[in-house]
Amino acid sequence: MTYCAAISVNEGLVFISDSRTNAGVDNISTYSKMNAYGVPGEKQFVICSAGNLATSQAVILQVERDIEDNAETSLYNIQRMSDVARYIGDLLVNEQRAREAKGAQFSASFLVGGEVLGARCRTFLVYPEGNFIASSQQTPFLQIGEIKYGKPILDRVISDKTGLDEAALCALLSMDATTRSNVTVGPPVELYVYEKGSLQPGRYVCFDEDNEFLRLLRRAWNDSISQAFQNMPKIPWSSE
Amino acid sequence: MTYCAAISVNEGLVFISDSRTNAGVDNISTYSKMNAYGVPGEKQFVICSAGNLATSQAVILQVERDIEDNAETSLYNIQRMSDVARYIGDLLVNEQRAREAKGAQFSASFLVGGEVLGARCRTFLVYPEGNFIASSQQTPFLQIGEIKYGKPILDRVISDKTGLDEAALCALLSMDATTRSNVTVGPPVELYVYEKGSLQPGRYVCFDEDNEFLRLLRRAWNDSISQAFQNMPKIPWSSE
Repeated sequence: MTYCAAISVNEGLVFISDSRTNAGVDNISTYSKMNAYGVPGEKQFVICSAGNLATSQAVILQVERDIEDNAETSLYNIQRMSDVARYIGDLLVNEQRAREAKGAQFSASFLVGGEVLGARCRTFLVYPEGNFIASSQQTPFLQIGEIKYGKPILDRVISDKTGLDEAALCALLSMDATTRSNVTVGPPVELYVYEKGSLQPGRYVCFDEDNEFLRLLRRAWNDSISQAFQNMPKIPWSSE
Repeated sequence: MTYCAAISVNEGLVFISDSRTNAGVDNISTYSKMNAYGVPGEKQFVICSAGNLATSQAVILQVERDIEDNAETSLYNIQRMSDVARYIGDLLVNEQRAREAKGAQFSASFLVGGEVLGARCRTFLVYPEGNFIASSQQTPFLQIGEIKYGKPILDRVISDKTGLDEAALCALLSMDATTRSNVTVGPPVELYVYEKGSLQPGRYVCFDEDNEFLRLLRRAWNDSISQAFQNMPKIPWSSE
């Protein structure tokens, strides 16, 4: 399983992904599900994937080949983020179609986001069918994979006005909630923050299994949650 | 859809349930999914249900008939909570079997908990197959229905040492996270707290859609969560 989220706020974009893959619980491996590309001063992109690993790797491979071969359509000659989403969707549908002929399920989905000089900084969720949706002011985050455990904290905290640092922390707490509840989502956890308008590679960090900061964050958060209970209103019992 | 949870702590038991039922999103109704029974000084029981409403109501109807008819096996002549779980499981399997002959899906599941004089205060989750699992010190809460959104807050807060009031608040916040994310889970929300050893009916409250307390609680919680971000450690970016 996988959990990835992309948050789009006024100041920029936040991406988070886990790195656990499994073909049955007795065959668990670690693969990065986050890829970043860019030309400083011109364009920056981040792509996160969920689903069949062979499919998502095939798509990423093609993305990289198209850049290297300077293909007619590649990440580096697309002018709008929505066209990037369409391009990834096309690669995805082609790859899946090639496998489905053999009669099995090889679906995957993607989060793509970034900015091209002169166009809007945006994120998209690309479905296995190749179509896609954009984040918006009303829906400032997108998720793929095991999305439910990590959604409540995003729902409570994230709006378009949330600062980048707070959004990044929130993404980590959303991931923490997910990894606690589903063992097939797990570290290393990759976190990437892109500052809107910079057109430079963003801040990046990869937290491994025993990372001291993640432990610290989890403890601080659990303490804050426990304290928060002291300030809640009292339940108005019917019988009192 | 439905969300119900039963929390078992040293001081007693907490039950929460929503009241929305739907047969398609264009056919939404309100039904209580929580039933309490007891003989003061002798025994107290709470039963929450999820799944097919006709099935769960048929089981509850039979539970109440068995009490009225003073049947050989009824809630009021069972001596242990595990036997209550077995009894509910048997009723459930019988009811489902009668329908499955007609070729459709009528499954349901139950949370049952309570205390009988001289036996352990416990909660059980009864599966559609009629088998069941108990809560334990390591697993102090059980959930049925749409369980994922409301699980992280329970995971972070609930241990066997959690006080009853805090557990009840936590149950409400778990329900709030679920109703925000899944429109087919909704108010009225019923909350029941049983004090271990009392063998008396517990504290009960039913919150309707526009309940002022629920609004207050949600606002106070969101504020606390936002404040908590101020106290989190700073992310150690690789590039800094």
